[in-house]
Amino acid sequence: MKYPEALNKLIESFQMYPGIGPKTAERLAFFTFFKLKDEDIVRFSQNLLNLKTDIKYCSICGVLTDSEKCQICSDPHRSNTILVVESSRDVNVFDKTNQYNGRYHILNGLISPLKGISPNEVNLKSLFKRISYEVPEEVIIATAATVEGEMTAMYIKKQLENSRVRITRIGYGLPAGGDIEYADEITLIKSLEGRRDM
Amino acid sequence: MKYPEALNKLIESFQMYPGIGPKTAERLAFFTFFKLKDEDIVRFSQNLLNLKTDIKYCSICGVLTDSEKCQICSDPHRSNTILVVESSRDVNVFDKTNQYNGRYHILNGLISPLKGISPNEVNLKSLFKRISYEVPEEVIIATAATVEGEMTAMYIKKQLENSRVRITRIGYGLPAGGDIEYADEITLIKSLEGRRDM
Repeated sequence: MKYPEALNKLIESFQMYPGIGPKTAERLAFFTFFKLKDEDIVRFSQNLLNLKTDIKYCSICGVLTDSEKCQICSDPHRSNTILVVESSRDVNVFDKTNQYNGRYHILNGLISPLKGISPNEVNLKSLFKRISYEVPEEVIIATAATVEGEMTAMYIKKQLENSRVRITRIGYGLPAGGDIEYADEITLIKSLEGRRDM
Repeated sequence: MKYPEALNKLIESFQMYPGIGPKTAERLAFFTFFKLKDEDIVRFSQNLLNLKTDIKYCSICGVLTDSEKCQICSDPHRSNTILVVESSRDVNVFDKTNQYNGRYHILNGLISPLKGISPNEVNLKSLFKRISYEVPEEVIIATAATVEGEMTAMYIKKQLENSRVRITRIGYGLPAGGDIEYADEITLIKSLEGRRDM
């Protein structure tokens, strides 16, 4: 017994996503058929189509935005510190803390020789250009504590060696609420390296 | 900092599904933007639109199908036993076992006074009509071991009291590989009730 063609096709579409296996895709397709209103399905379909056409990258920082220049880059009240992150999602995470009032630069990727991603394929050129004319007080690098994150941070540091701008990296170590017992070695090493006077 | 409108809309669409919270919806929307090919997005969008227009219910058993009459109902080699299940997904599950060669009847729901689902809103009328002219050897009720499943089974049993057809219910009890230690009470009670001579 096979499912109807239209159902199988939708199941396939859901399966394109990481973390969605055959069973989950089936569940989602059935939910679409039995529980969603026709107008919600049409809207979902339309939202998919509009995604790539309606979204732009900010011409300054590279964040995903509706307009040529994003909200943050257009805000004159922000300090000229630049926080360098991997993706637009990271911007949201930092901005929600309400502890950072500077600007951002989004790499839209990380350097990775393993995956064949060279510095040219990451939004770096515009970062260096930007630093040269904005002359920020500080460039904070907030890439992940992974091989690619480290490599990208080192690359930026090296390229800016001769500039007079202060370059820092966010602290790495034990997460809030984290139990030492369950922390991995690398995290503990980072937490020792990042120790501060009390 | 807000996400672009088009991204937020897609996030909202993903959030319509059970089990997909804000974080997962965000991850899926970002994946759509950064990782899916344009043609895959267009196909996904189209598959959503085609879903409701291209799928029919089999006029005999109620399973989801491409045609007026499903594969199984069109198959002359199947026995005339009827296995009553809640949904089209259950048909697939039973059919994969290769141990059942009869026909099916799909209720597309279960009777539930709590959710306000009366017998009329479940695909039952066609079952009774079908039984009266197909005169099956046996009607096997395979609804879930839940309040609604029980209630629906009892209702069917009662409606067919005066017919001469044999009515059975699938066995309930400890699942294969299940540890008694971890089984819930109801399952254990059912397994006692369903005991058989060795």
